[in-house]
Amino acid sequence: MTNKITTTWLGNMKFESTNPSGQNLFIDAGEENGGNNEGYRPKALMLSGLAGCAGLDVASLIKKMKLDVNSFKIEIEADLTEEHPKYYDKVSMDFHFYGDNLDEKKLQKTVDLSAEKYCGVLEMFRQFAEVSINSFLHKK
Amino acid sequence: MTNKITTTWLGNMKFESTNPSGQNLFIDAGEENGGNNEGYRPKALMLSGLAGCAGLDVASLIKKMKLDVNSFKIEIEADLTEEHPKYYDKVSMDFHFYGDNLDEKKLQKTVDLSAEKYCGVLEMFRQFAEVSINSFLHKK
Repeated sequence: MTNKITTTWLGNMKFESTNPSGQNLFIDAGEENGGNNEGYRPKALMLSGLAGCAGLDVASLIKKMKLDVNSFKIEIEADLTEEHPKYYDKVSMDFHFYGDNLDEKKLQKTVDLSAEKYCGVLEMFRQFAEVSINSFLHKK
Repeated sequence: MTNKITTTWLGNMKFESTNPSGQNLFIDAGEENGGNNEGYRPKALMLSGLAGCAGLDVASLIKKMKLDVNSFKIEIEADLTEEHPKYYDKVSMDFHFYGDNLDEKKLQKTVDLSAEKYCGVLEMFRQFAEVSINSFLHKK
């Protein structure tokens, strides 16, 4: 399969980018870098791509395995190198699950399946970053 | 520097993800994959991150070098592998510049500086994909 996107300059530091969903997104620099903050910072879109990819796997497995989960979130901290070109060299990805009746083993299995089998974005991140993945269960 | 983002499950296949710009974005699967298409596909966000990163470099250099450009866009075609985990293994990135008075050499220099020196996202892509970059000039 091929993904195609077009990203168009709108003047100054602002861009509009297509997405296979049919919904466009805006990219802009912050005022400190000559932009007007009218869009997302592009590098961090990589992290939303990572969280979204793994999140969709886990959400799909929660459904398939009929697990009882009130909510979950993924927190990512990614260190950038100091020198140009600045890339993410160390990434930590924490899954937080919330619920009164969480099945620790099965939830860990959803994370493991995403990390080891399904998540293509994580596979890409592993080629340039040291990635650590942790899961936390919260009663609520 | 560290980038931190939080991505929260909103039920079914929908997520809300933060961005350092302060603007949140939504991620969702399409209806064919159990979602409601109320957000971006996460994997392609990587491509918007790539185009945005290089685009900001080029926009910034156009300004600094006082180049006469009416508009420009970046078209990306990225091939996904067939087997899980599906990742982008081949990426082509075409810069299209539009204007009546384009300076070919200097515009090529903006692209080269981004590709070889500044664009951290491109540096990450090079670790997992074969990336080809081309520039095209259009009179208009």
